[in-house]
Amino acid sequence: MYPNFINHIRKYIEFDDASIALLNQYITTLKLKRKEFLLKEGQICQSIYFVEKGCLRMYFIDNKLNEQITQFALEHWWMADHFSFLDNKPSPYFIQTVEKSEILAISSSSFEAMLREIPQLESYFRIIMQRAVAASQLRNKYMYEMSKEEFYLMFSTSFPEFVQRVPQYMIASYLGLTPQYVSELRKKKL
Amino acid sequence: MYPNFINHIRKYIEFDDASIALLNQYITTLKLKRKEFLLKEGQICQSIYFVEKGCLRMYFIDNKLNEQITQFALEHWWMADHFSFLDNKPSPYFIQTVEKSEILAISSSSFEAMLREIPQLESYFRIIMQRAVAASQLRNKYMYEMSKEEFYLMFSTSFPEFVQRVPQYMIASYLGLTPQYVSELRKKKL
Repeated sequence: MYPNFINHIRKYIEFDDASIALLNQYITTLKLKRKEFLLKEGQICQSIYFVEKGCLRMYFIDNKLNEQITQFALEHWWMADHFSFLDNKPSPYFIQTVEKSEILAISSSSFEAMLREIPQLESYFRIIMQRAVAASQLRNKYMYEMSKEEFYLMFSTSFPEFVQRVPQYMIASYLGLTPQYVSELRKKKL
Repeated sequence: MYPNFINHIRKYIEFDDASIALLNQYITTLKLKRKEFLLKEGQICQSIYFVEKGCLRMYFIDNKLNEQITQFALEHWWMADHFSFLDNKPSPYFIQTVEKSEILAISSSSFEAMLREIPQLESYFRIIMQRAVAASQLRNKYMYEMSKEEFYLMFSTSFPEFVQRVPQYMIASYLGLTPQYVSELRKKKL
């Protein structure tokens, strides 16, 4: 099953075992290897994804043909291109596993049906989305006030496990730095 | 009353007149002049705010003692420091009217009570928050791929009314540009 997902739901709302039984029919569990894709540029983001185990990244190809990473998701995080998911529009993004992962997928039609059958999940998703807005406000503030070096140091102090698990060149892409510069910062810090 | 708010709710969910009557007890309408504050640094963000009419800005004081604007909200937009609101923590932000405004406020305790009494609003707020996440993903992507000049041009083309209503120095602060540079871009464009 998916203990991380159930624990995450119960962190925010009351959710009994009968509701878990109902939930099962809407969840697809994907066991993926490293570097497998959940979404490619031009496709519609058909599902929202919960990381039960592992790690995802989201990126787009910029006009210099580089992979620009915009988000990561570790355990307990949701990931989706929300405009594509909500409005059925082709996405500019790729979503890919960074390591071997266990991902829960809820398709757009399952999402609607699930919220009708288990209405208390509206509350869970409202809180999750509100916390995602809060996180993006905080990140946005950091981007305004911190140098890239400060941002890297804050990032690696706040998420030490993350910096261990994710290849250095991906962290560099996310932070808008060269891999060489991140390597220097890492040496400086140690 | 607040026709813009009711229309906004009905854009996303079914909402009958009986529900509107219930809703009224949770809403506080604030009629504010220009430059009035809804939140100051160090306070807890006690309410979420809907712009029925007018315009809000959110900013913090950076380490050079400049006002750094991070968000604006025109009619139909919500504004809050969500971490402060959710977790009852002091906010680093100011929220202030840019022009004479009519603002709807829902306090934290009213918000919980309202969602218990009118559960279909969970769905409205889930969708609103999900669309806010989507908007921040899009903005984030623009920040990665556009020069500041391109960002200004995209911004002023997408929101022409906004550029008319908001003072130039505020748009400059939001975009991380000097007022002089924005003034040059504006001339270039005309």
